[in-house]
Amino acid sequence: MSKPVGPRARPIGVFDSGVGGLTVLRALRGALPGEDFIYLGDTARLPYGTKSAGTVVRYSLQCAAALAARDIRCLVVACNTASASALAALRGAYPNLPVIGVIEPGAEAAVAASARQHIAVIATEGTIAGGAYEEAIRRRNPQIQVEARACPLFVALAEEGWTDGPIAAAIAKRYLEPLFGDQGDDAGGAAARPIGTPDTLVLGCTHFPTLKAAIQAVLPPSVIVVDSAATIAAAVFRQLGPLRPQSTPGQIRWLATDGAARFARVGSIFLGEALDPAAVEIVDL
Amino acid sequence: MSKPVGPRARPIGVFDSGVGGLTVLRALRGALPGEDFIYLGDTARLPYGTKSAGTVVRYSLQCAAALAARDIRCLVVACNTASASALAALRGAYPNLPVIGVIEPGAEAAVAASARQHIAVIATEGTIAGGAYEEAIRRRNPQIQVEARACPLFVALAEEGWTDGPIAAAIAKRYLEPLFGDQGDDAGGAAARPIGTPDTLVLGCTHFPTLKAAIQAVLPPSVIVVDSAATIAAAVFRQLGPLRPQSTPGQIRWLATDGAARFARVGSIFLGEALDPAAVEIVDL
Repeated sequence: MSKPVGPRARPIGVFDSGVGGLTVLRALRGALPGEDFIYLGDTARLPYGTKSAGTVVRYSLQCAAALAARDIRCLVVACNTASASALAALRGAYPNLPVIGVIEPGAEAAVAASARQHIAVIATEGTIAGGAYEEAIRRRNPQIQVEARACPLFVALAEEGWTDGPIAAAIAKRYLEPLFGDQGDDAGGAAARPIGTPDTLVLGCTHFPTLKAAIQAVLPPSVIVVDSAATIAAAVFRQLGPLRPQSTPGQIRWLATDGAARFARVGSIFLGEALDPAAVEIVDL
Repeated sequence: MSKPVGPRARPIGVFDSGVGGLTVLRALRGALPGEDFIYLGDTARLPYGTKSAGTVVRYSLQCAAALAARDIRCLVVACNTASASALAALRGAYPNLPVIGVIEPGAEAAVAASARQHIAVIATEGTIAGGAYEEAIRRRNPQIQVEARACPLFVALAEEGWTDGPIAAAIAKRYLEPLFGDQGDDAGGAAARPIGTPDTLVLGCTHFPTLKAAIQAVLPPSVIVVDSAATIAAAVFRQLGPLRPQSTPGQIRWLATDGAARFARVGSIFLGEALDPAAVEIVDL
């Protein structure tokens, strides 16, 4: 007699304004390799990072509705901007669905990492303007000093695939030097972290993990880099646990609101593997 | 007896996906200083450059409807991507309204400028993928050789306001060297244009005029740069002529679909003067 097979566990829904959330999906798959996922990229309206909070809430509710209609058992908000603006609205609209955003796990990891209670956050304009990371960090420890900086060119760099080389290095230096001081050309050398600068950096945008090496190269070597993609994957794992045998690889269903070819081409940079444009279903929200 | 005052001429409507079209408005105001304008930036859904043609047509029709409802006498499509994809649909929807796009005037100016019949076009991904400049150039002269390259990082650079300095120079070099050859560090010197490279460059995105100096610095000195903002302004002037006395400065009404503060802040880079966020009316399309 064969072992009875239970009903297939419902998938985990993941949405982002575009392809950046694929760094989150990649981390989620690493943590929960047996689960099924549905990924929705709202590519018709990306980026969210430069839009107002009200607009981001409206778009996020539409993304959540499309995923809820596909019977997900958990909603992962893989977009920092949407996590910053829309989490309360999403939880209000779907009281029976666990909704996990990317800000809280990142803030928690940063607070745990920062020995000197001084954290820097880099993100899109929208995330920084909303102040969600600062708020989430200070809620855990009001003594912590937080510096925040919008780095919008990192998004374009990541989407172009120019994630290393002199241009990525120069842009990283220009954005980060005001926060961490000049490390000179010998950034990886013996230079100690200057007194009075942060000891922890939160990558508060899902595009930024692709630039992690270029970013770390201009930081004092002692600075701890908190990757919000990795920390949300850990949070989902803690909350849900693996429901399916880890030995059976899960399936991924791809949804986008526009441009399957570009989704697949640029998305492969973030996912870290090839993505077939024919597998991307275009949906109208 | 005072001179009778005629009815006020209806305004010229201008739309763009965001603030880039303000380089076009700036050129239009220079050509037609006595006219009234209504500018609409679809900031809730920018950028159009990475979206599919069908989506750009839909958004463009919504922008045009908002302007037509405000009784314009001419519609200027200040967005290259929308000009490339949506001009026929707009003319079909508004048969009695002159609709002027940015591609045709730019193509015409480039064909007139290129002595060696070899033109390069730089634009967003969407404009390049659609091939509208190549098509408009070859329609005028099928013998002309056209090279095209998408330069998406120029958009982010312009919006960040990093329009000069080493980062703009390095990005310009990386994008343009494959088209024009290596000019070395002494780009402005006696280096002649290499044989077999284009003699004319079309700035096929409204963001790019803000980077004109950085772009010209990496080009052979003999290359002619065609600025699509300036050429569309000349085309509107030729088609409409000045209807109001040039001595009375025209009024501008500002509409955006999202984010008045960002519209004013980033828009001032493109307009070349300060823009008051309180003057920006947010409209829902």
